[in-house]
Amino acid sequence: MTTYFPNIPVIKYEGPKTKNPLAFRFYDADRVIAGRPMKDHLKFALSWWHSLCGDGSDAFGGATMDRSYGGLSDPLKIEKAKVDAGFEFMEKLGIEYFCFHDIDVVPTDKTFAETRENLLEIVDYIKGKMAQTNIKCLWGTSNYTRHPRFMQGASTSYNPDVFAWAAAKVKNTIDATIALGGQGYTFWSGRDGYDTLLNTNLELELDNMARLMKLARDYGRAKGFTGDFYIEPKPKEPTKHQYDFDVTTVLYFIHKYGLEKDFKLNVEVNHATMAGHTFQHELRVARINNALGSVDANDGDLFLGWDTDLFASNIYTTTLAMYEILKAGGFTNGGLNFDAKVRRSSFDFDDIVYGHILGMDTYALGLIKAQELIEDGRIDQFIEDRYSGYTKGIGKKIVDETVSLEELEAHVMAIGEPVLSSGRQEYLELVLNSIIFS
Amino acid sequence: MTTYFPNIPVIKYEGPKTKNPLAFRFYDADRVIAGRPMKDHLKFALSWWHSLCGDGSDAFGGATMDRSYGGLSDPLKIEKAKVDAGFEFMEKLGIEYFCFHDIDVVPTDKTFAETRENLLEIVDYIKGKMAQTNIKCLWGTSNYTRHPRFMQGASTSYNPDVFAWAAAKVKNTIDATIALGGQGYTFWSGRDGYDTLLNTNLELELDNMARLMKLARDYGRAKGFTGDFYIEPKPKEPTKHQYDFDVTTVLYFIHKYGLEKDFKLNVEVNHATMAGHTFQHELRVARINNALGSVDANDGDLFLGWDTDLFASNIYTTTLAMYEILKAGGFTNGGLNFDAKVRRSSFDFDDIVYGHILGMDTYALGLIKAQELIEDGRIDQFIEDRYSGYTKGIGKKIVDETVSLEELEAHVMAIGEPVLSSGRQEYLELVLNSIIFS
Amino acid sequence: MTTYFPNIPVIKYEGPKTKNPLAFRFYDADRVIAGRPMKDHLKFALSWWHSLCGDGSDAFGGATMDRSYGGLSDPLKIEKAKVDAGFEFMEKLGIEYFCFHDIDVVPTDKTFAETRENLLEIVDYIKGKMAQTNIKCLWGTSNYTRHPRFMQGASTSYNPDVFAWAAAKVKNTIDATIALGGQGYTFWSGRDGYDTLLNTNLELELDNMARLMKLARDYGRAKGFTGDFYIEPKPKEPTKHQYDFDVTTVLYFIHKYGLEKDFKLNVEVNHATMAGHTFQHELRVARINNALGSVDANDGDLFLGWDTDLFASNIYTTTLAMYEILKAGGFTNGGLNFDAKVRRSSFDFDDIVYGHILGMDTYALGLIKAQELIEDGRIDQFIEDRYSGYTKGIGKKIVDETVSLEELEAHVMAIGEPVLSSGRQEYLELVLNSIIFS
Amino acid sequence: MTTYFPNIPVIKYEGPKTKNPLAFRFYDADRVIAGRPMKDHLKFALSWWHSLCGDGSDAFGGATMDRSYGGLSDPLKIEKAKVDAGFEFMEKLGIEYFCFHDIDVVPTDKTFAETRENLLEIVDYIKGKMAQTNIKCLWGTSNYTRHPRFMQGASTSYNPDVFAWAAAKVKNTIDATIALGGQGYTFWSGRDGYDTLLNTNLELELDNMARLMKLARDYGRAKGFTGDFYIEPKPKEPTKHQYDFDVTTVLYFIHKYGLEKDFKLNVEVNHATMAGHTFQHELRVARINNALGSVDANDGDLFLGWDTDLFASNIYTTTLAMYEILKAGGFTNGGLNFDAKVRRSSFDFDDIVYGHILGMDTYALGLIKAQELIEDGRIDQFIEDRYSGYTKGIGKKIVDETVSLEELEAHVMAIGEPVLSSGRQEYLELVLNSIIFS
Repeated sequence: MTTYFPNIPVIKYEGPKTKNPLAFRFYDADRVIAGRPMKDHLKFALSWWHSLCGDGSDAFGGATMDRSYGGLSDPLKIEKAKVDAGFEFMEKLGIEYFCFHDIDVVPTDKTFAETRENLLEIVDYIKGKMAQTNIKCLWGTSNYTRHPRFMQGASTSYNPDVFAWAAAKVKNTIDATIALGGQGYTFWSGRDGYDTLLNTNLELELDNMARLMKLARDYGRAKGFTGDFYIEPKPKEPTKHQYDFDVTTVLYFIHKYGLEKDFKLNVEVNHATMAGHTFQHELRVARINNALGSVDANDGDLFLGWDTDLFASNIYTTTLAMYEILKAGGFTNGGLNFDAKVRRSSFDFDDIVYGHILGMDTYALGLIKAQELIEDGRIDQFIEDRYSGYTKGIGKKIVDETVSLEELEAHVMAIGEPVLSSGRQEYLELVLNSIIFS
Repeated sequence: MTTYFPNIPVIKYEGPKTKNPLAFRFYDADRVIAGRPMKDHLKFALSWWHSLCGDGSDAFGGATMDRSYGGLSDPLKIEKAKVDAGFEFMEKLGIEYFCFHDIDVVPTDKTFAETRENLLEIVDYIKGKMAQTNIKCLWGTSNYTRHPRFMQGASTSYNPDVFAWAAAKVKNTIDATIALGGQGYTFWSGRDGYDTLLNTNLELELDNMARLMKLARDYGRAKGFTGDFYIEPKPKEPTKHQYDFDVTTVLYFIHKYGLEKDFKLNVEVNHATMAGHTFQHELRVARINNALGSVDANDGDLFLGWDTDLFASNIYTTTLAMYEILKAGGFTNGGLNFDAKVRRSSFDFDDIVYGHILGMDTYALGLIKAQELIEDGRIDQFIEDRYSGYTKGIGKKIVDETVSLEELEAHVMAIGEPVLSSGRQEYLELVLNSIIFS
Repeated sequence: MTTYFPNIPVIKYEGPKTKNPLAFRFYDADRVIAGRPMKDHLKFALSWWHSLCGDGSDAFGGATMDRSYGGLSDPLKIEKAKVDAGFEFMEKLGIEYFCFHDIDVVPTDKTFAETRENLLEIVDYIKGKMAQTNIKCLWGTSNYTRHPRFMQGASTSYNPDVFAWAAAKVKNTIDATIALGGQGYTFWSGRDGYDTLLNTNLELELDNMARLMKLARDYGRAKGFTGDFYIEPKPKEPTKHQYDFDVTTVLYFIHKYGLEKDFKLNVEVNHATMAGHTFQHELRVARINNALGSVDANDGDLFLGWDTDLFASNIYTTTLAMYEILKAGGFTNGGLNFDAKVRRSSFDFDDIVYGHILGMDTYALGLIKAQELIEDGRIDQFIEDRYSGYTKGIGKKIVDETVSLEELEAHVMAIGEPVLSSGRQEYLELVLNSIIFS
Repeated sequence: MTTYFPNIPVIKYEGPKTKNPLAFRFYDADRVIAGRPMKDHLKFALSWWHSLCGDGSDAFGGATMDRSYGGLSDPLKIEKAKVDAGFEFMEKLGIEYFCFHDIDVVPTDKTFAETRENLLEIVDYIKGKMAQTNIKCLWGTSNYTRHPRFMQGASTSYNPDVFAWAAAKVKNTIDATIALGGQGYTFWSGRDGYDTLLNTNLELELDNMARLMKLARDYGRAKGFTGDFYIEPKPKEPTKHQYDFDVTTVLYFIHKYGLEKDFKLNVEVNHATMAGHTFQHELRVARINNALGSVDANDGDLFLGWDTDLFASNIYTTTLAMYEILKAGGFTNGGLNFDAKVRRSSFDFDDIVYGHILGMDTYALGLIKAQELIEDGRIDQFIEDRYSGYTKGIGKKIVDETVSLEELEAHVMAIGEPVLSSGRQEYLELVLNSIIFS
């Protein structure tokens, strides 16, 4: 059988001290953390697009990576080779999930009808591979960003025929996702946004964006899809203003249009930071609104104003992220999708392996440290103590909403100045560092 | 009678060509635009804090401006002198509204009870001045930012006694606002946000922030206040994350907590830009959600990451802002509040006059140009034509929600590739410039 | 003869009131401003790459614009058609200069030797067109950004063979520039920067970048090139850190490596803003260091963190830019190159025309207003008066460097507190607006 | 004897596992790293201003911290108590250096003559404490930011009398620094920058800024000062544009004005990030230009656009910083000055202790990891190998500058396409993490 990663063995856990680059230092799939094996907490997924399709081209230059899979030219053969390569990769890395766009798995220069047929064929081919492995589909999604017909948005296009195209693609990708047993369907709004309000009917575009989601929900549910629909926030790029700006914007959107029972958030690190938020902030907001669905696990560069989709390498970020995910009770249908790409000059196939080892170890150590943080308890206890005034006396009445402004004024007259205590940020940072680096 | 602006005459309209710095070039109060005099469209308001209290101190140095009002030292006399100076200023500039915080009008080093008494006395004094003029209160607000007791938030403090202080202040400021006939009460959340999630119960803080607003609403309505409550978004500063991040965040908040019937937005230019949005964007979002209440009219510096509160000087910004306000039907209870301060080195009293002339002319010309934009019609017509596909055929069915994914797929199979037309951004910018500069 | 812009007439000046989109409102080529016709002040140049090659593709999707020039497929015929189209365009718009990269004018999939031959052939073809018109070459440049071999930099590559490629391309482009009579040769450092210091020898890379420039200078001078070499600053994108960060960085570079006699700056609006500077700031710094060479005339979007290359539409920006250029005595070898592209959804050929009309009118009005600003004199006089203390007394001694710290201390002891005067920013902004909008 | 930190013992090293917040986890002063004790590598300094003077006030509110030193009111007694407290603090923390502004150590409401006298008195008092301890002065500096007379800049003021004030202050602070045996004198340009070019003579202001530095150099050298002069870059805040924008800007400045023999850089983390650079970048640029003098050790928040002066807590930042410092051969006259402040709501004296323990441990672990990185050698070796092409063949000729463009072109013709190797960023990040977390 053809191998696409001939230099790559099955990657094994060798512990923090190993100098073997092709080994995990922290990811030990079956190690039990907080009652579950690491792999069940993390649910890593391969992103078909970046790792199997991405060729290193950017806005300033063309492909640096050979993605002909051994010099193939027949389009469908390339797609099947990608499936083979992807499954080889996932098995060697121990990744049990994958995510895909419709256009990641089929040739993109066909008619709609041909594409639908190709999609059926490749889905069958993937199902065959899935049957032989433990690998599952985390979620599917439609891409209505790349094709020029979507240059002015998809469901938010000024042109109803373009809306229809987006809708038809969503239908077929939902079908494919169901066929693959996927428990999630993600909306990423690509070019759904505006470049200038001088040519934009903002209200109609937002209404129409919701209309496609309602159609998708109704169709999916009718076809027996019981998973979650996700919306993935992003604030800008390629458009000046993307409609799914951040987690809160999406929460308002799904509530305004009555989608909140079926839709959750797929939160991406780099999109969070582009919106001016920490990743932890966005996870927290999703969590306290019961809308934390899944995660696009990458890293942004805070010095740069565009989406870099770096592989995660920052342990602070992943520790605080896994803290939120553990506090939310872990993933149900969601997981950690590696929406990350190797740098354009990391053009060897091996670099994709290094990238995933880096990302998996970074999240694995984050999980370990997050659980230590919870077990250590100092920070959680500090917060509980800090707000304990709201469990008694005037504080409890405030929370129970059994107090009036007049009564609160009388309280102030009675007590005079409040006695304050320090917020202790430096102490808490010291505790955090002592846990991460012990 | 003492004058505080001895060099300043009543400022009159002299037209664009005048070289008199103490004259309006564009603001001609009674000139009728779109059926109403300019002053009714614009409803300019003096900000008590910046113009009567601000002393030029910043984080790097102390006061540069003398605010002793002729060398006064008795605190209540200073407050009354501020009233006198403010009314002289408003009359000379032709400004018919003012906005105030509780702490702008009373000495700030007193007990709660004394402060309440002082507030009553000064409110009476202001009412006396109002009776002699045409000047009205646009809105009032409480400041729970400056005093150290609010260092860790007001209604979002970890400490219920601090919540009580915030509540008691709100009560008294609502009383004062009602007494002054104010048609608005604004919540600006000062330090309601967090510096680190390591010490923060985000969920409780947000719930409590809503609790104070409910208390305020119920109290105000019980006391006969029929105006609007406003929330003023700001994304950060002084805290790392302010809870009222942007217009959409506030919309989600007021809907989540059932406040949407009584609360609208007070949108500030510089806060919009700090959140990564244009001012027009924030106005548009408020407008299409029927929540555009009032405006804090200033300007930000997009090269700087903090709130600069510059006087408005950019005609592009004000033209597009006034376009949104005209399209919204104009202000009802709201207006244009000059939440703007002269630079620290513009320390003469005269500079405040120049600042207001600059701001008033900038908004006046913006109004004129916005109305020309609407009358010209090319841009509005372009948008109407662009989206006309949604008024018929498959487009109408999409909007009417009488179509299914299957039907949309069949439509795609039937039509093949959509025929697209250019978005024409450059042409529309050319039209905009031709209107602004003709 | 084939026409590529059949709908486009020769664009004429019709004045500010015209509603004809295919006319100039402000650019009146032969109108004399400050003693010279507008066209001599502005020296507009067509950018071969954006306007003749750009196809609307971006990092998120493919071409939206047909650039087959009537369905041609033979590569050299396409290049010649581009020349024809470019000259038709320039003549219709009244643009008298063009700028080009080597790869803009030849097929890009050839060997080095073939490319060199093609370049000679096309240069000859262009010279033929130049002979029939008044059109001139403003400057040429090599592109070592697009080809994958330059993925890790050109002269800053870790690989000397890549340095050699960059050098060989520079040689041929200098030859072409000389052949076309170009009076400028521009270095834009494309990918000369780093993504991570973990794999970078910063010192060697900077030394090598200078080495290529020295080689180019020596070669060009030996071949009789008497024009200017330019470096075009950009702070980031595509790399995390581009070496030519901003004007001051380049000034340090050219002085450190002894290039200051031959090298000036080509300042781009959008690159200035990405570096955290206003365009006027960068022009001023170049001006006072006698290094203002040429300008890439576009616009950035301050809400976005990447290079948008919008057509200039902001009159404030161009007024203050032309003020600096007038104060510098105008361009000698440089000019205003439209390094600007129509939006991806402005895919008609007509949109390029609208874009250029927009840009040309924006700079023309900027020129008019800048000259009015100078003639008005209030702002210049304000500055002269403000600093007049340095023309006499202790101030003059400071400037003449004939004073000591001890003497300055004695001066302080003698005078006590200085008497300060207001910086009058609001007044000056009012003056600026009154000039721009009168 | 009075103690100001009664709850604080001498802080000792207890290792990474300790739960004692009043202990070091990583800073073990006498532990030898790379041949020198940690304390000699790190040379920590107390910042008089933040830790002894800072009262928690910010632009939005007043003091939260009591800095009356036991309720003192006599100004000179307070200054002496600050000395006592500072020395107690330094001895308890094991900090052997301090940095100071003139206004940090004397009452600020006196005449120039009185201030000079007070300064002499306090300097004597400090010298007394120094004689009893091992504590030394790292550097001194003048503050010409806080007083209103400097509202429009100090040496860059439009007003020569203000220049004289700045000069006189510099003289006295240099005297004090020499008296205290300080080996550095730092220029931080406070308000030396501009808010608007509409009122600014940029060229004169820069010339004058250099003039003061020349005066200071000549005076200092004449008085026997043999230490380094430092300039501390900052790009903006409080002014829109600060003249000492970043390291490269300062390098250009000191070379342009002939200051490079006497002036080095004092690089601050948060100022680096505000300028759009990583701290490591700025250190590297200073290092390869032989201008790395000293460090202001704090942390910025990349989500915020102003100087936060957080205590360092990020091990990635300090590891890469200490890597640069080790590669530069360590500090000579410079050190790590804690230009950091506890958060406004960390108002207890104890919080300052936590802040310093956090900062010291963060730099100590950074030092340990940096040395491990160097000893590990994988990253350094990767870089050496990567650029090895420049040590032979055509590469060596490029570096030796013995090659021509023609010869390089011939080389290209001979070799055809270069053979490239991957930049391996992901692998290198994996190595970095494996060192930091092992």
